[in-house]
Amino acid sequence: MDEKANGIGTVETQFFTFDELFLELGEKLGPVTLAYETYGTLNKQKNNAILILHALTGDAHVAGWHEGDKKPGWWDEMVGPGRAFDTDKYFVICSNVLGGCKGSTGPASLNPKTGKTYGLEFPIITIGDIVNAQEKLIDHFGIKKLLAVAGGSMGGMQALEWFVSKHPKIQSSIVIATAYKHSPQQIAFNEVGRQAIMSDLDWMEGDYYGKAVPSKGLAVARMIGHITYMSDISMEQKFGRQVKTEKQPFKFTAEFEVEGYLLYRGGAFVKRFDANSYLYITKAMDLYDASRGEPLAQVFNGIQSRMMAIAFESDWLYPPYQTHEIVKACKMAGVNATSCKIESTYGHDAFLLEIEEESHLIRHFLKKVYEEIQVTQVYEI
Amino acid sequence: MDEKANGIGTVETQFFTFDELFLELGEKLGPVTLAYETYGTLNKQKNNAILILHALTGDAHVAGWHEGDKKPGWWDEMVGPGRAFDTDKYFVICSNVLGGCKGSTGPASLNPKTGKTYGLEFPIITIGDIVNAQEKLIDHFGIKKLLAVAGGSMGGMQALEWFVSKHPKIQSSIVIATAYKHSPQQIAFNEVGRQAIMSDLDWMEGDYYGKAVPSKGLAVARMIGHITYMSDISMEQKFGRQVKTEKQPFKFTAEFEVEGYLLYRGGAFVKRFDANSYLYITKAMDLYDASRGEPLAQVFNGIQSRMMAIAFESDWLYPPYQTHEIVKACKMAGVNATSCKIESTYGHDAFLLEIEEESHLIRHFLKKVYEEIQVTQVYEI
Repeated sequence: MDEKANGIGTVETQFFTFDELFLELGEKLGPVTLAYETYGTLNKQKNNAILILHALTGDAHVAGWHEGDKKPGWWDEMVGPGRAFDTDKYFVICSNVLGGCKGSTGPASLNPKTGKTYGLEFPIITIGDIVNAQEKLIDHFGIKKLLAVAGGSMGGMQALEWFVSKHPKIQSSIVIATAYKHSPQQIAFNEVGRQAIMSDLDWMEGDYYGKAVPSKGLAVARMIGHITYMSDISMEQKFGRQVKTEKQPFKFTAEFEVEGYLLYRGGAFVKRFDANSYLYITKAMDLYDASRGEPLAQVFNGIQSRMMAIAFESDWLYPPYQTHEIVKACKMAGVNATSCKIESTYGHDAFLLEIEEESHLIRHFLKKVYEEIQVTQVYEI
Repeated sequence: MDEKANGIGTVETQFFTFDELFLELGEKLGPVTLAYETYGTLNKQKNNAILILHALTGDAHVAGWHEGDKKPGWWDEMVGPGRAFDTDKYFVICSNVLGGCKGSTGPASLNPKTGKTYGLEFPIITIGDIVNAQEKLIDHFGIKKLLAVAGGSMGGMQALEWFVSKHPKIQSSIVIATAYKHSPQQIAFNEVGRQAIMSDLDWMEGDYYGKAVPSKGLAVARMIGHITYMSDISMEQKFGRQVKTEKQPFKFTAEFEVEGYLLYRGGAFVKRFDANSYLYITKAMDLYDASRGEPLAQVFNGIQSRMMAIAFESDWLYPPYQTHEIVKACKMAGVNATSCKIESTYGHDAFLLEIEEESHLIRHFLKKVYEEIQVTQVYEI
């Protein structure tokens, strides 16, 4: 109760529906619903809004508590009164991505043309499409310019895409633990996850709704993911070579603690996530290339918004050099960008765990950006 | 033809069978057959023999050509007249590991007790068991002391185990790209591969012989492996973000070259490897701990044999620090050990690819070891 009292308190997911979205790869999708949550109060000038962007398997529920839940939202420690995304000052929005399975339109939604779930009839979507859908939500609130967009991992890709294609609508972007395009290694890890899903006989070319879901394949995909989210060191610290059981013969049951952990996490994941969404969203990440095939600095030319980029020392899935490439290109283009590297042993998971360091950086950055627009507005009067 | 003429030429796999093997975990296995090949000539003193130890999915066919094959053995460039393992001077032996599927006794062999294939009735084996079986083969040749044992990856674990438990029977050990025990991250990658296999409905608790094999699960396991064998850089150099096809809509077919490569390698692998062997051999690797739970230096105490350890800069599956741990412990124990780190961008695959650098190191090391025993023998006369 105390934990709840200090933060956002109880929240509910809301829904926004619009008629249609023109997709980057040429198709049209509609109607489109986005699940979203908001925290804090939008001020009269509508200039204190921050859009938080979630990662691959995240959702709109970034902070506060859902009725009856045992855990708060996925970045609760970062969002709330007095926290880095300070809801006493800012109005925070988070929406579930297009293609997701947490209330937004995705492959598990009803296809109005057929009256059945989309399955693989759902069109291939891109990070650009995800951001275009978010823009509709922001327009719906009547917000002309966001104070900031912020996200880690795939959320960082969206923060970058806002920065590149919608910079007149944002004061700043906080880009965490991400890449402007996936390396072949990053594509490879996603592809193996997709293959694990599609190899599951229950997948049935994506047409499994109302039947058995491809839970084994999805669990394997998630286990691969978990290995890449941790570091060699963090696994060593968490598990070592601890053995779960001394029972012989163990054959191929989970024996080392790390095996039990992966099985548990894989099993828990299939209860909360849709396999087809996993395919579509990982594909969107793999297709993303903020540079549009040009030298990256070129797409940053003339951008007036600010960027803060954060990377983590032991993150080998999105290694710091990839963040450095983004900031370097910003600087070449004369764009105001800061690069921060946090020392952490948590690997990629650090963006969800290094709360203190991140809070410090983000609090300070937002304060500066917010002060700047207030000064600007005084002049404008 | 020229390529064949310069090397070993045509070779044939041979077989050695012995009655039984007492396994480290308490069970008894027999009869046991090892598939093996030899190259060069064992000299009269029987002191020029080298045992080469293969990696996870390797076999006894390290060099030369099998009748009708389009490719030579897996380390052909290293073994032959004038090559690093010089068959003009040395007698080279390589055997398929116990538990394997390339002619040695493994889960696909007939269980004499039941008259059926073992499947999961096959006992859990260890790196120690694999080495104990090899020792029987060496005894069969009447070799009292091997000039060297040498291997990379899981072969390196065997080379290390010979060094620890059978050092009176080896002059030297060449330990390449390996670890004295698997880290949780290494266990995790193997475990996800095993889960992919066991999730395949065709696996049927290992009882699939004569029916459909769990090819999809095994292919996924192999794809995970391939990612870990390469480096971020080598993947970038080999594939970049090259797209295989411009055809739209691509949905979830392989689109990036790296995806096509993984699918191809995964598909090719299931034709040549048994899924149950993959389970047993990866488990043997995960269970291995050369230190026996003691400080590593302790197991090296009093060893008179020499060691050369080789690591590769970009190998993130068996990072150089793991080799360094082995050599450091040797030095603490006063054992003659040399550590070499080869600069390479190939990742773990480097032990199969950095032929020139490896040849240089190994040729020189073997020459020194061989000269030493000849001097010793002169004194003995």
